[in-house]
Order: sequence, then C-alpha cells, then structure tokens
Amino acid sequence: MYTSTDLEKQIEFIREIDKLKNIFRLTYLMDASRHENDAEHSWHLSVMVFLLKDYANEEFDVQKVLQMVLIHDVVEIIVGDVNVYDLEARKKQEQKEQDAAVDIFGKLPKEQGNEFLTVWREFEEGLTTESKFAKALDRMQPVLHNFFTEGKAWKEHNIKASQVIAGNKHIEKGSKELWKFIRNLIDTAIERNYLINDLDEVNE
Amino acid sequence: MYTSTDLEKQIEFIREIDKLKNIFRLTYLMDASRHENDAEHSWHLSVMVFLLKDYANEEFDVQKVLQMVLIHDVVEIIVGDVNVYDLEARKKQEQKEQDAAVDIFGKLPKEQGNEFLTVWREFEEGLTTESKFAKALDRMQPVLHNFFTEGKAWKEHNIKASQVIAGNKHIEKGSKELWKFIRNLIDTAIERNYLINDLDEVNE
Repeated sequence: MYTSTDLEKQIEFIREIDKLKNIFRLTYLMDASRHENDAEHSWHLSVMVFLLKDYANEEFDVQKVLQMVLIHDVVEIIVGDVNVYDLEARKKQEQKEQDAAVDIFGKLPKEQGNEFLTVWREFEEGLTTESKFAKALDRMQPVLHNFFTEGKAWKEHNIKASQVIAGNKHIEKGSKELWKFIRNLIDTAIERNYLINDLDEVNE
Repeated sequence: MYTSTDLEKQIEFIREIDKLKNIFRLTYLMDASRHENDAEHSWHLSVMVFLLKDYANEEFDVQKVLQMVLIHDVVEIIVGDVNVYDLEARKKQEQKEQDAAVDIFGKLPKEQGNEFLTVWREFEEGLTTESKFAKALDRMQPVLHNFFTEGKAWKEHNIKASQVIAGNKHIEKGSKELWKFIRNLIDTAIERNYLINDLDEVNE
C-alpha cells in the first residue's frame, strides 16, 4: 500500500496535470467560440468510450481504454500540441513525447508511475485492441468538431480531403462501423466546401 | 445492436454535451488564471479515480465510478452551476437537475439513455460504495483548487472554515484516508488565512 509520501506525490501529480487545461488544440469547440483544450478533449473521448463501445470491432477492456484516453495527452504539458496533419512536425515530436512521458509519470509512486507509463506507451504504439479503439475515438472527435464548425480549423490550415482521409482511415482498425460513418461525413464536408476537394487528383 | 438512427442520436448527444466546456464553476484553475469549466473538472476527477482508487474504504466497480464522474455534471448544461456552499440554492436546484437528467439522457437510444440516467441517479443519491467514492473525489478536487490558489474562490465568497468542513466531511464516507488528508489541508488553509476561521465559535 501507499505511504503518506506516496499520497503527497499523487496530489502533486494532480496539481501538475491541471496544466493540461491550458494546452490548446487547433480544433474549435462545436459552437466555434474558441479553441478546445486537451483536458476538455480527453473528457469528451472518455464519455465517447461509454457511448460508442459497442461499435468496436472486437470486445475490449473498457477500463484500460478509459485510462488511455484520459492520460494520452498529458505529455503535451511539456511538449505542446502539434498539427496532426503536419507529418514532419509529428515525427520530431515523437521522441520528445517519449521522454516527457518518462518525466511526468516518474513523479508518481514508482509502481503506479510504471503502470501509467505502460498504458501510455500501449496507446502510442496502437497495436492492441484497446489502443486501436482509443485511437479511433481520438481521431473521430476532432473530425466531428471540424464538421460541426463548418470546417473552421480545416479551412484555416488549408486542409485537403485526401489529408483528412489518410489521417483518419485508421479509425477502421478500431471500428469499421464508425469509420463508415466518418467517411460519409467527410464526403458531406467536401460537398459543403468545408474541405478542399483534391480527390480527383489523388488516389485515395 | 444499434441502428444507424441510434448512431445519429449518439453523435447528436456528443455534440450536445460539448456545451459542458462552457459551463464555468466558481473554482479557479490551480494557476488562478481563470475559472474552471465542468468538462475540465470531470476530466480531472476521472484521472483521480485511477490515481486514488486504492484509498477507498471498500473495493468498488472502477468503470461505474468513471461513468459517474464523467457524466455527473452534464445536467448543468441545462440548469447551470450553483455555489456548493449556498444550501438554499442547492435545494431549489435538485428538482431542476432531476428533470434535466431525464431530458438530456432521453436524447440517447432508449436502453442506453436509461443506463446513463440510472448511473446519474445512483451518483446523486450517494448511497452505494461507488457513489460515495465518486462524491468524495467531487468534493476533494475543488478543495485542492482552492488550496493551491491560496483560497481565491473561498475569499471571494467569504467562505468560513466551518462551512468547508461541513460541506466536505462526507469525503470520509468514500475514503477515511483522503478525508484525513483533506482535513489537515483545511487546517493549513486556516493557518494561512485562506479561509475565515470561525471554529472557536461553532462546534465542528
């Protein structure tokens, strides 16, 4: 069991991750009033786990997926958020995030810190049923935000339909049904000019 | 299983609860820069479930507690937030919240809406091991926010030590250990004048 020093570490961690409420993302709230932050995004994903769990391709450990989506972005307290469609920036970000995860979860009591780090890495790798479904929701949610704001963030960053399809098609690995829904939504977004239509130029 | 109309309802619910990101609370972020909103608060509680679950008085269903803390405040999209120390306002709020819960969870596919409503009511009643622990975290988190902002929201609302003790002592029902920690924190808050000290005047 934990000691009183352990509880102090846990409280200090609770204080540290409060900073996630000030890490703002490129996506806007669905009323388009301001950018969304990582804490709000993580909350939204967690509720989506409960709402959409029956659409997963395979049965999974719900508690594990919840832990993944709740903590997947805390490394951004240290390294910040990058545009999901900026592939070069994302590549550079990867090692920094790995180091940040060791740093931030290292503040917890040892055994608990290792547990959080293991769950975080499992999410990043995306190889298990749990991480595939968690990643599907993590991609699906910003698409919904973009759709309901008439492509506000997509337009600001000149995002093309081919990028959105390439960047989101791995939703299918977590849920074929949800990908089908999102793929239709992307078509509607193209029809409504929320997105630049480059699909005649590229092979999907 | 769900139909495509069910999925549309679930997506509409995901859109509806986005509004929770604009329901602001009396408490401030731990850096005191602005008020916290309900989505951020709910995220913070959910991470705390994972961090602090071993301090609960009794073993409990972790997934159930996560669902409780994630959705406990969504009724505030309709009825708004009230000061936890304004007992009269809270009393009036109760029936409104019950109606709002029926309304908001009624937007979901029937069976799922009933499940969410049942979990929400279980939290409100606070009679089960799960709801006692969820409520303990829901009370503990704002105390931490107040403590780390040197009593910013307490001072603004002239909150007295006796009110904070009376309003939070049911943390003990979920976790004796966490209440011991918080009770000590309240004493430190009194020493540092984050709170009005009226403890000589009242019986605890």
